[in-house]
Amino acid sequence: MDEEIRLDPWGHIAIKDYERLQKVFGIKPLRPLLPRMRDPIHLFRRGVVFGHRDYDKILDALERGERVALVTGFMPSGRFHFGHKMIVDQLIYYQKLGFELFIPLADAEAYAVRRIPRERVIDYALNQYVANFIALGLDKKRVHIYFQTNYDTKYYRLIQMFSRRITMSEMEAIYGELEPGKVVAALTQAADILHPQLDYFGGYRYIVVPVGADQDPHIRLTRDIADRATEFKFERPASTYHRFMTGLDGGKMSSSRPEFAIFLDDPVEEAVRKLKRALTGGRPTVEEQRRLGGIPERCAVYEFFLYHLVPDDEELLSIYTRCRRGELLCGEDKDYAAQLLEKWLTEHQRRLEKARSRVEEYVEPPDF
Amino acid sequence: MDEEIRLDPWGHIAIKDYERLQKVFGIKPLRPLLPRMRDPIHLFRRGVVFGHRDYDKILDALERGERVALVTGFMPSGRFHFGHKMIVDQLIYYQKLGFELFIPLADAEAYAVRRIPRERVIDYALNQYVANFIALGLDKKRVHIYFQTNYDTKYYRLIQMFSRRITMSEMEAIYGELEPGKVVAALTQAADILHPQLDYFGGYRYIVVPVGADQDPHIRLTRDIADRATEFKFERPASTYHRFMTGLDGGKMSSSRPEFAIFLDDPVEEAVRKLKRALTGGRPTVEEQRRLGGIPERCAVYEFFLYHLVPDDEELLSIYTRCRRGELLCGEDKDYAAQLLEKWLTEHQRRLEKARSRVEEYVEPPDF
Repeated sequence: MDEEIRLDPWGHIAIKDYERLQKVFGIKPLRPLLPRMRDPIHLFRRGVVFGHRDYDKILDALERGERVALVTGFMPSGRFHFGHKMIVDQLIYYQKLGFELFIPLADAEAYAVRRIPRERVIDYALNQYVANFIALGLDKKRVHIYFQTNYDTKYYRLIQMFSRRITMSEMEAIYGELEPGKVVAALTQAADILHPQLDYFGGYRYIVVPVGADQDPHIRLTRDIADRATEFKFERPASTYHRFMTGLDGGKMSSSRPEFAIFLDDPVEEAVRKLKRALTGGRPTVEEQRRLGGIPERCAVYEFFLYHLVPDDEELLSIYTRCRRGELLCGEDKDYAAQLLEKWLTEHQRRLEKARSRVEEYVEPPDF
Repeated sequence: MDEEIRLDPWGHIAIKDYERLQKVFGIKPLRPLLPRMRDPIHLFRRGVVFGHRDYDKILDALERGERVALVTGFMPSGRFHFGHKMIVDQLIYYQKLGFELFIPLADAEAYAVRRIPRERVIDYALNQYVANFIALGLDKKRVHIYFQTNYDTKYYRLIQMFSRRITMSEMEAIYGELEPGKVVAALTQAADILHPQLDYFGGYRYIVVPVGADQDPHIRLTRDIADRATEFKFERPASTYHRFMTGLDGGKMSSSRPEFAIFLDDPVEEAVRKLKRALTGGRPTVEEQRRLGGIPERCAVYEFFLYHLVPDDEELLSIYTRCRRGELLCGEDKDYAAQLLEKWLTEHQRRLEKARSRVEEYVEPPDF
């Protein structure tokens, strides 16, 4: 059992990874800022959101009573799963704190880069993403959800004008081999992040962008564009970094691998069946597990507790400890998770059903 | 004296060049279509507009009484000179024939690719380009003049969606080394040309694009995009090809070489002074010129007669013939040109003065 795992019941990112992130990329640990955050939700307390750039400036602005905004985009390229829910939970937290939310639906990118038919992209965006936003509790007020292909001239103008502020080599360093679709998508992403700073869109100077750590190159690119597009007098956006949920087999959780993801509209029995087949941190035999304890850090079921199913830290700590001591075996653990999941999903799907008829209160769908 | 020059008083493009254009690029000579064109203006009669793709289909559509449109863009990167006027003369001809005109002002490209400050681009567009359109007689009706940075969501959507329909190598073959600004500009140009086919913009299926022959790669690119963006069911745009005026020194006429271009708002005396210094097709001595005749095909002054100053074909032919026979010497020729230019410019500048206050009747300027 190695030192780091023993020390970290929340499965925080390892200290040496922090150091690398900080040294190489300038990403700072978020934990020191926790005392300044108002009622941080479990995702912050448990280190799922682990790092940041300039988030202290956002906290300063909040403390001075200034207006703050958040931008985060969703690529409507498939069904909405629990990995997405984790991001929406953050959004709802920020919304309650008074942040104005801007949520681009990256339908242009899904069409041009992922090459998904347009009708399907729009359907995913509305009936998977926006419907789940509503069912999860996103408030209609203070949120601007928009399709990248259905927004405002002043937004598109930024895409055009930013095209002067970045070189092909800089883009290649981030995106690898380029195609025109990727070039346009990258510039569009910069416009998504920076446009709320324009007076026309509210003039929000303090903007935070919650992303996965793999998205940091985009953030750096956008911060560079903010500096270089001098005529706009932009502030650099702040960012926070979250870990991603792994799939039920320990790989990536992705809508392209539906058997290893749980979708929020999966039939409840199917969701439970998937969860029960999930890879755990259990040992080869019961005897070994009693003796050595399980490894919750490698357990997809524990991840569901950590990210979604157990809001109370004391309870989570108890599950963690009993597993590590070999007191809680995988069978019992899965039964409990299944029970929580079934309850949560049943209630959520009742809300989701109603939410589907309300999506157009939240976003105007493109006519084509 | 070579055969081609002797045979061609209008300075038509050489037959062997036609053959190359047709064989290599599929550009056809326009002359065979002249009998089908209604009251073709001098630029068509004299072969300044010399070639086309699919213009016969436009004529067919006109004959069937269908609606037809024209798209041509202007890059507001400097002052408006007689090379630009030649294009506007074509536009006014088409407008009188009943074509709907779409005129993009390529301010996004001037800013992002030519790197001209935005304020200056907008000023050129309004006070140089649009003001001259008006003064030259463009009718306010049936014309859609727009800034690329100040148009419509459905237009910007095309830029995004076209980004999927072309590869980087195809773009490189046309533009050489690429930068993001060029990628966006190329896609924008395709949107400029194809958007009038959308029902929202009028649903014009028959579109002609008058361009210089050097612009043909863009036309081919746009025709390919029209074919590939299958969801839109676009027709391929037709095109016509014109020669460009040369500068007063025989080089390129360009606003970046102001001493060798005549601008439509040059003080009249300055315009005349420039014209009088122009390179002609004259011989080293008067004696030689009397004996051998001048070479109007190489004469910047003759070009002014051909493109602008002498609307009557008989009169132009007489100037041509007298020059070639050595009867008309450069001094007399220049004096006559100067006299016509002075008269024309004086009247034009009176109209231009008034036109400047009317530009916003023709186009909405961007707010930034």
